[in-house]
Amino acid sequence: MNDRASLDGLVDGLKAIVGAHAVFTEPLDRAPYENDWRDQYHGRAAAVVKPGSTEEVARVVKLLAGRRIAIVPQGGNTSMCGGSVPDASGTQVVVNLSRMNRVRGVDAANNTMTVEAGCVLATLQETADKHDRLFPLSLGAEGSCEIGGNLSTNAGGTGVLRYGNSRELVMGLEVVLPDGTVWDGLRALRKDNTGYDLKHLFVGAEGTLGIITAAVLKLFPKPRSQATAIVAVADPHAALTLLAFLRDRVGERVTGFELISRVCLDLVFRHIPNTRDPFAKAHRWYVLVELSDSTAGSALANLFEQALGDAAEAGRIEDGAIAASVAQRLEFWKLRESISEAQKADGVSIKHDVSVPVSRVPELIDRAGAELARTFPDIRIVAFGHLGDGNIHYNCSKSERQEAKQFFAESGAVNHVVYEVVKSLGGSISAEHGLGVLKADEIVRYKSAVELEMMRAIKRTLDPHGLMNPGKVLRA
Amino acid sequence: MNDRASLDGLVDGLKAIVGAHAVFTEPLDRAPYENDWRDQYHGRAAAVVKPGSTEEVARVVKLLAGRRIAIVPQGGNTSMCGGSVPDASGTQVVVNLSRMNRVRGVDAANNTMTVEAGCVLATLQETADKHDRLFPLSLGAEGSCEIGGNLSTNAGGTGVLRYGNSRELVMGLEVVLPDGTVWDGLRALRKDNTGYDLKHLFVGAEGTLGIITAAVLKLFPKPRSQATAIVAVADPHAALTLLAFLRDRVGERVTGFELISRVCLDLVFRHIPNTRDPFAKAHRWYVLVELSDSTAGSALANLFEQALGDAAEAGRIEDGAIAASVAQRLEFWKLRESISEAQKADGVSIKHDVSVPVSRVPELIDRAGAELARTFPDIRIVAFGHLGDGNIHYNCSKSERQEAKQFFAESGAVNHVVYEVVKSLGGSISAEHGLGVLKADEIVRYKSAVELEMMRAIKRTLDPHGLMNPGKVLRA
Repeated sequence: MNDRASLDGLVDGLKAIVGAHAVFTEPLDRAPYENDWRDQYHGRAAAVVKPGSTEEVARVVKLLAGRRIAIVPQGGNTSMCGGSVPDASGTQVVVNLSRMNRVRGVDAANNTMTVEAGCVLATLQETADKHDRLFPLSLGAEGSCEIGGNLSTNAGGTGVLRYGNSRELVMGLEVVLPDGTVWDGLRALRKDNTGYDLKHLFVGAEGTLGIITAAVLKLFPKPRSQATAIVAVADPHAALTLLAFLRDRVGERVTGFELISRVCLDLVFRHIPNTRDPFAKAHRWYVLVELSDSTAGSALANLFEQALGDAAEAGRIEDGAIAASVAQRLEFWKLRESISEAQKADGVSIKHDVSVPVSRVPELIDRAGAELARTFPDIRIVAFGHLGDGNIHYNCSKSERQEAKQFFAESGAVNHVVYEVVKSLGGSISAEHGLGVLKADEIVRYKSAVELEMMRAIKRTLDPHGLMNPGKVLRA
Repeated sequence: MNDRASLDGLVDGLKAIVGAHAVFTEPLDRAPYENDWRDQYHGRAAAVVKPGSTEEVARVVKLLAGRRIAIVPQGGNTSMCGGSVPDASGTQVVVNLSRMNRVRGVDAANNTMTVEAGCVLATLQETADKHDRLFPLSLGAEGSCEIGGNLSTNAGGTGVLRYGNSRELVMGLEVVLPDGTVWDGLRALRKDNTGYDLKHLFVGAEGTLGIITAAVLKLFPKPRSQATAIVAVADPHAALTLLAFLRDRVGERVTGFELISRVCLDLVFRHIPNTRDPFAKAHRWYVLVELSDSTAGSALANLFEQALGDAAEAGRIEDGAIAASVAQRLEFWKLRESISEAQKADGVSIKHDVSVPVSRVPELIDRAGAELARTFPDIRIVAFGHLGDGNIHYNCSKSERQEAKQFFAESGAVNHVVYEVVKSLGGSISAEHGLGVLKADEIVRYKSAVELEMMRAIKRTLDPHGLMNPGKVLRA
């Protein structure tokens, strides 16, 4: 590929398939596809190609596979782990799916829609809404991430407690396999027991087994009422007990249950304008609770008030404020959603997107905190996240007196402390962000040899030449 | 294996692992494990072995794999397709998991339980109930089927509309692989994005890729109120419209939506004692609707009455009766649940467990009916099932004047007509019962070559010697 003539020949071949306008070879044109949005990974691609149809993807893959050229599938390029950028070799070709952004169909009576991989998530939420349905996948990057990437990384987000991860929202897939064959698995069936469920291999595979080109997604009844509160609790264990209490009282109406430490709120109040403490006095821990119901009216609010009143009376919570208006609801959510930004404004941090069984979250927080304090006495723990999913963003900020560089030098050791605690609690070192490049080495320490070998065997079977997104998820 | 000495050596080896009491070689002892409960498949095993632990399963599989002896994994042996019985060669060994029936643990705060493969489904429902939780998998055979089999066949049942199939109810698996290695994938995590999700390969694989020995299952809040009605509608299309109307009004409280034709009810009234028509006049189609809510009280009943009242007023339904008591609720369900028995009492029938997108069910019924009528003018269509899942039990009974034998001779041709219509509607020829032996040949006609080849490649990778449940799902 360093051979100029060979590259020219390739580019001509790609242009013949997708058109000259959809192949980028100049550095400036390639750049947005070579670098990740967090500015952590800087690759160099032989070319960037943007096919406009499944058939074009298949022909591009066939051409590249025939020449044994590595392929980096890419959607909105919003990976948190460098999963969608090429390496620095200049030999890989980025296949970007953004031009494939058609909604092929909405079947409201079946509660499904069939969409192409390059559809932006927010657009799909709007499409569902237009048909009076909910597509519940929702996350920070929804304005630019694309559904193919969401599925390839099994994206989580704020709807998981009630609706599950991306994996649970997909009924069928169309995939271009590593040899350029098209697998049409676009079934829209709620029941189909005719052999191995192959779609689950491609969901969460981060493009290492093939390129998802289209999907059948599930739609749900729209929530017609919501009730939101901020509740102060003594500690994560009290938060856990409150979750069980509420689920007992209102069942699966609990759609949001976000744990927030006082440290987080202090950062938010310090750095984010127009935020204020909902309570007169400071508490050590908080939970943002949201209930939803598919019926309209005040029944949900009444149910919530009663349940929280009973919780207060029983001493389960220290204080609580139910949002009295949509404005106040947004104010509460702003506290939760500004934590990352506030943490960034406060200085560098080492982040951990980890999960444990919901019941073990208090132990995770206690033990990781104690062990870190022993080795890194100055570290500040900024812990928050989806308690209802057992998924905590267990972030660590440097102390004011520490140098950023020195702090970063410690990140391996900090990761190790946190991940060992996570492992001992039966947890995962990547709850919702995937492995990408970032954790492709690390995972080898935290997965059994049996499981790694099964993963490698599947990879060898479906991608024998190792051409699909090499270096991500599994090292060769 | 026809060699007596070789068989004796094998049996000694098995006894050394599991104890002499847990290896059956005499015909009378083997018989219950060699024949299916519908008395359709009659095999002969070299031996039946009942390991008591995962370690014993692993050692048994290692022994058998080393000698290249085929293995038939078996749970409660309630397969509808001969999926759990040996062939007639006398060379296969049945590995029955029934002795592995411990609940390893219940984590109520995580809403999970970890159970062994041999646990009877009804026992697990009770275990969940004792912890004030719901395990929603529910089906006819629940008193004798075992969870390992439920997962291996991705069992459906009556809870699918609200809770999904077995696949959706499992968070982690422990599997003994075809070489006797144990894969410990018993994770209890709601989020874990660290590579390929291997558990989904084993769910629904009907024991052809390994033996599931334990699982982490999801638990849910218990329903605290229910409301049930029988509704008469003009046709399947009206039933479909009613489903959309109700979901719009009460959201996911719709937990049951069973379509029943008049032909079905007539059979029930004729053959099942203590059943009666809920309405004064006969209608052509009926729906059994059930709503559930995790809160107690009369709110749900009021919601239902209003919604059905509005539906009646708008001419969406012809008549309706809401159950006024638990006794009446059971009476309504008895009508639905007696259909198979009534059909059996009426004579032989050809059954089809098929699915299509929910929106296409009316078309399925219309078109299959019309095409069958053309070729088999005497055939009686007995159609009923889970409309909310797009899963219809599209059964055909013989006319009174036809001979059973002649009718059965036509079954291949009848299947063909029905399956071709199903295929043209993007449906599945096995919605919830799996393939087993029954449909292992048929499926080749209804799946793409690409998909079949991927399935075969996975099979070769995980079970290179083809020892796991040969002849089921995929022919060699």
